[in-house]
Amino acid sequence: MVTERVTQAVHVRKGEQTRAAILDAALDVASRDGLQGVTIGILADRLDMSKSGVFSHFGSRDELLIEVLKEYETRFLADILKPALTLPRGLNRLRAILDNWFTRLGQETEHGCLYISGAVEYDDRPGTVRDELVGMMMAWEEQLRRAIGYCIESGEFREDTPIDLMIFELYGLTLGFHQGVRLMKRTNGMDMVKQVLERILKQYLRTA
Amino acid sequence: MVTERVTQAVHVRKGEQTRAAILDAALDVASRDGLQGVTIGILADRLDMSKSGVFSHFGSRDELLIEVLKEYETRFLADILKPALTLPRGLNRLRAILDNWFTRLGQETEHGCLYISGAVEYDDRPGTVRDELVGMMMAWEEQLRRAIGYCIESGEFREDTPIDLMIFELYGLTLGFHQGVRLMKRTNGMDMVKQVLERILKQYLRTA
Repeated sequence: MVTERVTQAVHVRKGEQTRAAILDAALDVASRDGLQGVTIGILADRLDMSKSGVFSHFGSRDELLIEVLKEYETRFLADILKPALTLPRGLNRLRAILDNWFTRLGQETEHGCLYISGAVEYDDRPGTVRDELVGMMMAWEEQLRRAIGYCIESGEFREDTPIDLMIFELYGLTLGFHQGVRLMKRTNGMDMVKQVLERILKQYLRTA
Repeated sequence: MVTERVTQAVHVRKGEQTRAAILDAALDVASRDGLQGVTIGILADRLDMSKSGVFSHFGSRDELLIEVLKEYETRFLADILKPALTLPRGLNRLRAILDNWFTRLGQETEHGCLYISGAVEYDDRPGTVRDELVGMMMAWEEQLRRAIGYCIESGEFREDTPIDLMIFELYGLTLGFHQGVRLMKRTNGMDMVKQVLERILKQYLRTA
């Protein structure tokens, strides 16, 4: 009875490890080739597993892609949001979030940001994967909206700061940076980002 | 002899027409599914031709894709740049270029801009198609650089206007707009674009 439970526990742990390894490989493939590059066949090949072995861990390819997006989101938030939440609400926290965001994006330019590549891949493909992606991006906007809202509450930003417009400007900046570095091979991308970021923030500072 | 020439001429004209029809179909497919969606098979199917028939008009698939990009560039410049060149050099011309650009982008949101989707498709695929795409985008930047330069010469923009930074801001704006409308289904995209555009221009106006 005890042995059986131990065996089961080991089995579950091994299953979880395999699942994590599949997700890890899938995330790596997705960062390089986009979500569309993630196929059961490629993952089986990478992990030296059978296709049905990979498949047994996820109900369908779309479900696998959704899990990949969720894993991406977890890491995204862990890198960008979590460290900033230790700072008090207001401009310092917002700056930390933006710094972390652009730093991560700068590190990601080798591979590409999954939200950005996924946006182009799925902007005309309705379905659960697109819904998940849009949901995550909306959740991220909500985090930004909150962080900007605290800057208004703290009096650091003007009362009439157009939060959605600011988020729109920030998104454009991330997209321009990503494209500039990845496609156009600009070497001064981060320097430009910093200048534009200061201009964006400055517009809303109460002391400006 | 005369008949032969006439026959040849008709043949050439027919060949050109077929080539134009293939390009037209390819551009349509590329706008919807990206350059990667353009395959000889799909075009043959669309035009009710044999694959070898389609193939005979282009040396290779990459050559076809390059021709698609060139056709896209021709239409892009005809819509955006040509009408603006009738205006005198300076801010009015620059504004016309930007208006035309965003208007076209607004019309394209149903299908997607080939430069934008191509950028994500080819940012990590070295080769002739990518080189062509990057070359076209650099040529477009050069046009913007010139138009902004005229605004400095005319005294409408400050002497120290950072031209490359302004272009970087404009690119980010197009990308943010494109993603906002296509993926996030924002309905106020054009309104936001206009507000941000005014902010960008205002920074550099001598009278600001």
